[in-house]
Amino acid sequence: MKGRKVSDSRTIMTQTVFPNDVNNHGTLYGGRLLYWIDALGGIVAERHCRKTVVTASIDSLNFLNPIRQRDIVIIEAWINYAGRTSMEIEVRVTSENPMTGEKTKTCRAFLTYVAIDEDGKSCEVPPLIVETDEERKRMELAKQRREVRLRDLRLRPLEW
Amino acid sequence: MKGRKVSDSRTIMTQTVFPNDVNNHGTLYGGRLLYWIDALGGIVAERHCRKTVVTASIDSLNFLNPIRQRDIVIIEAWINYAGRTSMEIEVRVTSENPMTGEKTKTCRAFLTYVAIDEDGKSCEVPPLIVETDEERKRMELAKQRREVRLRDLRLRPLEW
Amino acid sequence: MKGRKVSDSRTIMTQTVFPNDVNNHGTLYGGRLLYWIDALGGIVAERHCRKTVVTASIDSLNFLNPIRQRDIVIIEAWINYAGRTSMEIEVRVTSENPMTGEKTKTCRAFLTYVAIDEDGKSCEVPPLIVETDEERKRMELAKQRREVRLRDLRLRPLEW
Amino acid sequence: MKGRKVSDSRTIMTQTVFPNDVNNHGTLYGGRLLYWIDALGGIVAERHCRKTVVTASIDSLNFLNPIRQRDIVIIEAWINYAGRTSMEIEVRVTSENPMTGEKTKTCRAFLTYVAIDEDGKSCEVPPLIVETDEERKRMELAKQRREVRLRDLRLRPLEW
Amino acid sequence: MKGRKVSDSRTIMTQTVFPNDVNNHGTLYGGRLLYWIDALGGIVAERHCRKTVVTASIDSLNFLNPIRQRDIVIIEAWINYAGRTSMEIEVRVTSENPMTGEKTKTCRAFLTYVAIDEDGKSCEVPPLIVETDEERKRMELAKQRREVRLRDLRLRPLEW
Amino acid sequence: MKGRKVSDSRTIMTQTVFPNDVNNHGTLYGGRLLYWIDALGGIVAERHCRKTVVTASIDSLNFLNPIRQRDIVIIEAWINYAGRTSMEIEVRVTSENPMTGEKTKTCRAFLTYVAIDEDGKSCEVPPLIVETDEERKRMELAKQRREVRLRDLRLRPLEW
Repeated sequence: MKGRKVSDSRTIMTQTVFPNDVNNHGTLYGGRLLYWIDALGGIVAERHCRKTVVTASIDSLNFLNPIRQRDIVIIEAWINYAGRTSMEIEVRVTSENPMTGEKTKTCRAFLTYVAIDEDGKSCEVPPLIVETDEERKRMELAKQRREVRLRDLRLRPLEW
Repeated sequence: MKGRKVSDSRTIMTQTVFPNDVNNHGTLYGGRLLYWIDALGGIVAERHCRKTVVTASIDSLNFLNPIRQRDIVIIEAWINYAGRTSMEIEVRVTSENPMTGEKTKTCRAFLTYVAIDEDGKSCEVPPLIVETDEERKRMELAKQRREVRLRDLRLRPLEW
Repeated sequence: MKGRKVSDSRTIMTQTVFPNDVNNHGTLYGGRLLYWIDALGGIVAERHCRKTVVTASIDSLNFLNPIRQRDIVIIEAWINYAGRTSMEIEVRVTSENPMTGEKTKTCRAFLTYVAIDEDGKSCEVPPLIVETDEERKRMELAKQRREVRLRDLRLRPLEW
Repeated sequence: MKGRKVSDSRTIMTQTVFPNDVNNHGTLYGGRLLYWIDALGGIVAERHCRKTVVTASIDSLNFLNPIRQRDIVIIEAWINYAGRTSMEIEVRVTSENPMTGEKTKTCRAFLTYVAIDEDGKSCEVPPLIVETDEERKRMELAKQRREVRLRDLRLRPLEW
Repeated sequence: MKGRKVSDSRTIMTQTVFPNDVNNHGTLYGGRLLYWIDALGGIVAERHCRKTVVTASIDSLNFLNPIRQRDIVIIEAWINYAGRTSMEIEVRVTSENPMTGEKTKTCRAFLTYVAIDEDGKSCEVPPLIVETDEERKRMELAKQRREVRLRDLRLRPLEW
Repeated sequence: MKGRKVSDSRTIMTQTVFPNDVNNHGTLYGGRLLYWIDALGGIVAERHCRKTVVTASIDSLNFLNPIRQRDIVIIEAWINYAGRTSMEIEVRVTSENPMTGEKTKTCRAFLTYVAIDEDGKSCEVPPLIVETDEERKRMELAKQRREVRLRDLRLRPLEW
């Protein structure tokens, strides 16, 4: 399978925060942001593999700063790592004050998507071609996160 | 007031079409697309003037091709022309088949926004700095559209 | 094909503006009103032709006055003109203060819909029967708008 | 307080059923219809009393026929009876097949609204002026329903 | 058909009231609560009969107290009575102040659901097994309400 | 500050999956489930501390099985650990086939919430009283996850 570059699937989504989107503290409701993050992560994963994808896990999503009503929300996502059937997508969220243009880092998340075929079975994705030092470093850290995730799984046996 | 460049406020929004978004023919509902177009146009206008804006009119919005469920929708918007208190924003919508990457031109619209101050009165916006031939041509056509709009108004007396 | 009268498809929609519907200035969000306008225009077009319709264009939509939260919104729509496969629908929006009953003209739009058959191809619509002088005048102006639209198209070559 | 006529507040709402609105059986979700019914009933009550109103009870709402996706939904509401601070509003829902124009009776409901002042206390509403025999009969039946409701309350002591 | 107990289908739904959910008086919009009530009642009915159900009527729904923005809403529902093809579900709504834990009774409703087969025809449901005195009393009152409903129907001839 | 028990804040939310909620593969959209998970986690955290809370992070959320349209979704959440100002909430999602009653484990997530005062500053929460061996074990694992999270943070320096 022919590889694809990080830049081939990188995507930007822009939103504004309406009264409809805020929680009871006047800031963007976490669940709404999660909705956008998952939608954008899925677009990047689909653009990389050109197959149907499903969200497998969300890892280490941190809300750094609240997003206020009226703010412009800029959500960027790209692929860090492609395994045999799974892809790690990084999503970064920046908020922008529309009156001043001042930007604030608000959220970062790592999501894992799996490509599935028409029977719902996982299937292969194209290898990832990294071109810059930064992309190589991100792929390296993604591999480490993957190991932490596996180690971490031992602390949370899936049986319940 | 210091001018701003076209590239200072240019914005991209990416969406996917969910079952939630389609009409009874399995294609993106026009009203939903209008919602996104107006939201994005407003972001561009706010980024140009850094003031509160309201939509004044929508001019010559054409739906060229239907957008199918599952398609990725790429909406790009930029400012064509800044008057004293109003701005013409052009919005172009492209749909992308997520399985093949094939792109289709689906919609173009011209929206006029007016900047308003805290009392809801219209107020001045920064002049637009055009840098390329294409930007200059777009500004020229926007001025002609403005005249057509005024001529056109005579055919639709506002009294009703 | 047997003609249909303007009054056969004329329709009224009434809505109220909830907190859910307002933008950051406390007035009805433009995109929400566009959603209602397109939905109502589509009902009128379907009632005229009793076929599936799609929105082809929105022409000269003007927001005359803001609609405040709590206002009752009265949206009226009727057909002005029927071509071979397309119909021009006029939509007028009035807002009503629920505490005083005072009414304000807030928006007018002209939308063009095309009837489509089961293969998604455009198909014929019934001729429009005009009965009053006002209806005749509206049909006449709709024809002129159609010409302006065509002339206008030359200022915006569709290629991009 | 000057009385108001039934026709002064009678209101029509028209909607279409989108994929977004149907339940898992392909028919309009009951909860969505209730949402529209309550919104329209509230408009009629506000138009009668020109005061803020809250829903007090819903009585004998019957779903007679399912509404299919794509159907046009015509919701009509008017006031049957005005007490000192409460109003009974009748809401009738008709569905229309957009391809044939065939209409079906689908739902009828009786809702009671109470007018409230700025402190949230119930306050007086204008008397209802009935003009036709049908309006008189509806007012009479509304009074009987009110008595049934009170008798009925004894079967359901409110303490829980 | 083997009977099922009241406790087999009893269900709890918890929600919070977001800005998105309130009306213009800052309290939960009635239509939104109706949406939740109907959804939960349908779950209980489906759990009792393990068949598709449709809402047939809503009887004597009373809003006792308003629910404020930020409140936690606890909705409980259980089956009171099973006829041959229909089931009466009781729904009780309690609001909880999240800052103090204080609870308020806010709404009670009785909904009737009918089980339908794949052709949309009504079909049999399992008999209800009542185990406690309270359950027996509720079943008894449900039967009386059923009679009132029938008597009540004579006051509202269904023809319109 | 007086401690609170795990059972004092444990909460259950029940939902059904409507056409409105599914993605393009006919299964519940991940972003919608995230919305519900975050809403429920916030209720549990508020019930423990009786203060305003904000989502700080989502850790190790795994989607084990897809949820199909029509399924009943049972979401349970409880507190595992209370630090000085933060709380770890565990959320478990089970789907239920409404026709057979068969249940499937579908998702587990660990969310961290922080209590904030009126100035938006973090503030103290009541200590957690664990009563059973299972609760003690969960608290222990939550502490270990907290350490993993901190170790993990070194792999993802927050600067970007």
